[in-house]
Amino acid sequence: MSDRIYTAGLVVIGDEILSGRTHDKNIAQVASWLQVQGIRLAEVRVVPDVIDRIVEAVNALRESYDYLFTTGGIGPTHDDISVDAVSKALGVPVIIHPEARAILERYYTDKGGVNEGRLRMARTPEGAELIPNRMSGAPGIRIGNVHMMAGVPHITAGMLDALTGTLEGGAPLISETVGGFIPESEVSILLRDVEKAHENCQIGSYPFFREGRVGSNFVIRSTDRGDLDTCMKALCDGLAEAGFEFTHGGI
Amino acid sequence: MSDRIYTAGLVVIGDEILSGRTHDKNIAQVASWLQVQGIRLAEVRVVPDVIDRIVEAVNALRESYDYLFTTGGIGPTHDDISVDAVSKALGVPVIIHPEARAILERYYTDKGGVNEGRLRMARTPEGAELIPNRMSGAPGIRIGNVHMMAGVPHITAGMLDALTGTLEGGAPLISETVGGFIPESEVSILLRDVEKAHENCQIGSYPFFREGRVGSNFVIRSTDRGDLDTCMKALCDGLAEAGFEFTHGGI
Repeated sequence: MSDRIYTAGLVVIGDEILSGRTHDKNIAQVASWLQVQGIRLAEVRVVPDVIDRIVEAVNALRESYDYLFTTGGIGPTHDDISVDAVSKALGVPVIIHPEARAILERYYTDKGGVNEGRLRMARTPEGAELIPNRMSGAPGIRIGNVHMMAGVPHITAGMLDALTGTLEGGAPLISETVGGFIPESEVSILLRDVEKAHENCQIGSYPFFREGRVGSNFVIRSTDRGDLDTCMKALCDGLAEAGFEFTHGGI
Repeated sequence: MSDRIYTAGLVVIGDEILSGRTHDKNIAQVASWLQVQGIRLAEVRVVPDVIDRIVEAVNALRESYDYLFTTGGIGPTHDDISVDAVSKALGVPVIIHPEARAILERYYTDKGGVNEGRLRMARTPEGAELIPNRMSGAPGIRIGNVHMMAGVPHITAGMLDALTGTLEGGAPLISETVGGFIPESEVSILLRDVEKAHENCQIGSYPFFREGRVGSNFVIRSTDRGDLDTCMKALCDGLAEAGFEFTHGGI
């Protein structure tokens, strides 16, 4: 495991997210999965089903980060244009991937066979490998550092599962949480000072309102267990000194 | 109401979204609210709590779209740096806004008064107006076409409510949905052809798996009620002809 920090970008493709019709679940899902791989999600862009907008986002993020993930737009209908967009971004033609075609033919054998719409799901940028899809027929697509996944969250989950352990990552970011009915505005100086004193740690403060009361969870993140524990102790000591009650693991 | 299409960008600021710790609720909330204002959410970027990354996203989106919204990073703690970032993006200094300070002093009168952390929430870019916050003390911020809101979704909801009707928009995008246990891969040609034949309408196809069965909802969007109804009728006729059962409003 190296000290190098590995990063990823995510392009969420779909009018349904931008219209508010569908609540995105893939950002959190991809983010959590990446953490375990030792890869940091550094940026997300949500773009509409418009080729040039997807191309622009794909090119910006695949060049800025080690890995790029996309979700959405790889299904059988006319609004599924992610393969066209990624091919355009990479400057390669769209082909019918023979292995993907074979997978779809098997999958649809007793479901009416492969028709024109279903065959769309065998299209990939030239030079791509497939990402297995254990949930339904159509595979995900991997080409260079670009990983194209489904929009339907549980299908994406299966694809992420298939990719587990296949991407080089660094030391995973680990975290500890402490929380209580503590207004963050009463401990802002403490948080800042504790973070400053612990170089390899970041402290995030996440306020909430619950049972009619104000509270916060404080999350310390680090790549080093020792640094994390030292920082956590300093924060807890500070909170206790200020007279606050708190719970490890957050509330 | 003009034919001009009004657009908005959204910058979601926060490590907690990129780490997967917090599931974002603001994208859907802002998107739905914008629809009602006759403004289309055209792009979202999620960026970490890093000044230059926020500056870059703010500048890209405020220049590309009519309106820019930001969520997150306007609280009292050291990781709340959105005001610094937006000020840097706009090239104006950060000031203590007198009206914001007065609001905070009133709000915290019987809660221990305004301390250093709480005073952070009175900081704005020079030249800003305030967006009322009916839920807690600290206001949102409006400067030029930039609207800065809280990260906590119900506080953002209150700020959006305060902005309702204050932004110029175009004809709202209206939509109709029809759905059923219809595999989208069996009607992909129909969807494409119906969309092609109805210029002012877009059709989105949103597959799901439920009760062990495959289905889809088809959403038609248009700015014109007549066009929408004509397109809807064509789609329903096509689905009926193909022998599918479906429900208006989606399932």
